[in-house]
Amino acid sequence: MNTPVTHSPASPILAPEPGEDVGDYVRQVGQEARRACVLLARAPSAAKNRCLLELAHLLRQARDELLRANAVDVARARAGGLDSAALDRLTLGEKGVEAMATGVEQVAALADPVGSIEQVRPLPSGIRVGRMRVPLGVIGIIYESRPNVTVDAAALCIKSGNATILRGGSEAIESNRALAAIIAEAMAAAGLPRTAVQLIGTTDRAAVGHLVSHPEYVDVIVPRGGRGLIERLMRESKVPMIKHLDGICHVYIDDDADLEQAVRIADNAKTQRYGTCNTMETLLVARSVAGTVLPRLGAIYTAKGVELRCCPESMAILASAGIAKLVAATDADWATEYLAPILAIRVVAGVDEAIDHINTYGSKHTDSIVTMHHAKGMRFLREVDSASVMINASTRLADGFEYGLGAEIGISNDKLHARGPVGLEGLTSLKYVVFGDGEVRR
Amino acid sequence: MNTPVTHSPASPILAPEPGEDVGDYVRQVGQEARRACVLLARAPSAAKNRCLLELAHLLRQARDELLRANAVDVARARAGGLDSAALDRLTLGEKGVEAMATGVEQVAALADPVGSIEQVRPLPSGIRVGRMRVPLGVIGIIYESRPNVTVDAAALCIKSGNATILRGGSEAIESNRALAAIIAEAMAAAGLPRTAVQLIGTTDRAAVGHLVSHPEYVDVIVPRGGRGLIERLMRESKVPMIKHLDGICHVYIDDDADLEQAVRIADNAKTQRYGTCNTMETLLVARSVAGTVLPRLGAIYTAKGVELRCCPESMAILASAGIAKLVAATDADWATEYLAPILAIRVVAGVDEAIDHINTYGSKHTDSIVTMHHAKGMRFLREVDSASVMINASTRLADGFEYGLGAEIGISNDKLHARGPVGLEGLTSLKYVVFGDGEVRR
Repeated sequence: MNTPVTHSPASPILAPEPGEDVGDYVRQVGQEARRACVLLARAPSAAKNRCLLELAHLLRQARDELLRANAVDVARARAGGLDSAALDRLTLGEKGVEAMATGVEQVAALADPVGSIEQVRPLPSGIRVGRMRVPLGVIGIIYESRPNVTVDAAALCIKSGNATILRGGSEAIESNRALAAIIAEAMAAAGLPRTAVQLIGTTDRAAVGHLVSHPEYVDVIVPRGGRGLIERLMRESKVPMIKHLDGICHVYIDDDADLEQAVRIADNAKTQRYGTCNTMETLLVARSVAGTVLPRLGAIYTAKGVELRCCPESMAILASAGIAKLVAATDADWATEYLAPILAIRVVAGVDEAIDHINTYGSKHTDSIVTMHHAKGMRFLREVDSASVMINASTRLADGFEYGLGAEIGISNDKLHARGPVGLEGLTSLKYVVFGDGEVRR
Repeated sequence: MNTPVTHSPASPILAPEPGEDVGDYVRQVGQEARRACVLLARAPSAAKNRCLLELAHLLRQARDELLRANAVDVARARAGGLDSAALDRLTLGEKGVEAMATGVEQVAALADPVGSIEQVRPLPSGIRVGRMRVPLGVIGIIYESRPNVTVDAAALCIKSGNATILRGGSEAIESNRALAAIIAEAMAAAGLPRTAVQLIGTTDRAAVGHLVSHPEYVDVIVPRGGRGLIERLMRESKVPMIKHLDGICHVYIDDDADLEQAVRIADNAKTQRYGTCNTMETLLVARSVAGTVLPRLGAIYTAKGVELRCCPESMAILASAGIAKLVAATDADWATEYLAPILAIRVVAGVDEAIDHINTYGSKHTDSIVTMHHAKGMRFLREVDSASVMINASTRLADGFEYGLGAEIGISNDKLHARGPVGLEGLTSLKYVVFGDGEVRR
């Protein structure tokens, strides 16, 4: 069943020719990707895994060279006044290189989704019908300053049999060029087409607009970056995207909550990390337990430096418990993703009001109820219209690794195709396969 | 777990107020649908089935009234010079009413996909993670003159818990109004919100443009109609669509085919019905068997009045077998969906050339190989990039009923979300559900 995979002679990190129109250049990259994706889709698991293990090896071997390329980017970015958080994301470091190599090995160890056939059933006409998992085709990854995305995304696309077009932030261009050269070497070593992973070799911002304008060359765009990037792409893209705009996640502490669990979950969901999309931004508390649980949580948050933006009722409870520095919440707070040590708090009548609040102000990302009441928990799961809904767990657990996907290319808040954390399966499609013995339509 | 479903007072077939802007009107319909979809998503299976069975009953009861409304449409369309094929699609008839009622009963008998939870697995942190099937939300159906689509589509959307906005062709407006009134009556009888199924109550063509411009109110558009409609919507729609543009389907007769099966399949795939999207439009034949099988097929096609457009090689074979009236195929023939008694025929070297031809000229709809060679059959399944790929079966079997889906809202040639015939499952989405016991992120 395996067909020989032939090399394409073209380079995967071709830059535009001097004077070449950037639109023509991106079209050429797209055409190469479209050709290469057919070959990669047919590649056997063994070749894809050989490529990934070789890639991990080459990353470790080329560590010093990678760090030198990265240092050029970091120095240029620092001189250009990039802020320290972005500089931090841009910087690779020895641990960063090792993390990339380990990540690629983990992807190699995952089961290959491509070619599996599910649910074959005999039907009255005599045909047997099932569904075969196949690659989507060409995935465009648009990201910002993190160079590790170059390797992480390429590894997931290689494993799932998809060609990739990578467009990283201009600050990381030297790091990305060095990484793309290593990926190409690993592809060639495994007999896979080098143009199946291409890096857009220009920092011209117009290239992004062209990349999202060609559904004939690119099947899906995965944007990895801040709200500004995603909003721009939502306006411009003619290619479907796997994306989420923001994560306004809630924990609702129900009347029937185990309050020890409630405190543990509400603490972790807010304070384990502030800048992630699955961090809780609004805490909802049932009136009957607010007086008991809010003072305990208020003390924890205050000790950790979290600013509390409160509805009048929660403010009264927290103030009388001696919590200082409270801020009155406005309507805008319910619809804000802080990505910072700030938490909105609201007292609600019960599960109905909690579900209404979440479906009104949330972003369909991840929401959790803390309750021991079975029926209320199941209602929350059914009626909260979010990609991940939880009973008695921290929203921070909404993650590809924690869900057992092995790795994550992104998170989708949309309902079509992939929803929630997206792993290898989200980079594939199911087509119908029919096994017949001469059957015809009557 | 069931919540009471409350009635919305608004009428589901509200027409715009005199002088009201059609954009404002469609927005209002969208807002009603968005509100109603929340209630329908929570509706228990029993209520949805009660509604469908009541609908079947009311359709039969109101048969004469429906035929009178339909007669008004038909008379107006005939006076307006509508062609006879379109008049035929517009005409309901007693059998048409009975077919609608039976179809609705069949949908009632299908399993409810909403609320099922799949693949719950324990994970290292202690949480158990699965996926719950839930409705998409609001489905917009845009169709042409067939009034039965009003009922067929509404039934599938009701069963899958989705609110529907129906926009039928202006020629069918009286029939559609009468059908929508009956649907509303059935909804009310089952205690479901009447505004969960709304008919756009104006024939203003601008309404379609507005309907596809509001992703905040409409989650998916399902266009049912000819190429012109689909192409227009592909340009205009800001809402994702479940659609296919055309069906250029192939049968490839391999060197290792059972020639009895080959003749039966190639005959059925072309001549069982000419105007359907899963009808074969191009026949590919391996060189080694062309001299044997083409004369037999040529005689059958000629007897049935099928015009044959041939490559030079197939033309020589057919001509020397005494088949008259052959037409030389041009490149355009390989990329044409005839929807008529016309067939393009090409001789190829073998399975490689067949796969290349299909992936180059096909429309990713349905393609079949006739072969007894296991490895070649499996390669065809893997490498032909179409929504349905078949071994030894007629392309005419690519159909929701034949695949056991029970019914079909449409067929998708796209790779994201639903692919191939789309039934109830394609109108739903999977969200992650997490069952915890106080777990947090470490």
